[in-house]
Amino acid sequence: RDWEVVDEHHLQKRFKFDNFREALAFVNRVGDLAEEEGHHPDICFGWGYAEIRIWTHAIDGLSESDFILAAKIDRL
Amino acid sequence: RDWEVVDEHHLQKRFKFDNFREALAFVNRVGDLAEEEGHHPDICFGWGYAEIRIWTHAIDGLSESDFILAAKIDRL
Repeated sequence: RDWEVVDEHHLQKRFKFDNFREALAFVNRVGDLAEEEGHHPDICFGWGYAEIRIWTHAIDGLSESDFILAAKIDRL
Repeated sequence: RDWEVVDEHHLQKRFKFDNFREALAFVNRVGDLAEEEGHHPDICFGWGYAEIRIWTHAIDGLSESDFILAAKIDRL
């Protein structure tokens, strides 16, 4: 499944996991990547899932760095 | 600020932080506690904030263990 562009405003993708701990481990990998990139997504997660939303807050919309971060998250 | 009871369905509270890393560190403390308790909240976070929602999925509503988890999160 690919990233969705929602309301021409943000990228969104839902990832599934077998439990809470695996979801949290993924969230930490995304968090480390976000710090490296200096670009921070919004993350919702719980038992068995993590949903990532990415946009550029300065323009309240999408920029190139959002697509770069999304592609790098897919490679985690 | 205290926990809100939303729609007689879940507890909700928003925590503020100075940056992304501190929000993620808090999320990890909540995650460790959730594993200890065997009770898992839903967490949304990003730069400077974390929002926690707690309910009992088996009854799709609130039970005593939700209030216990909320109180323990406040002590983290």
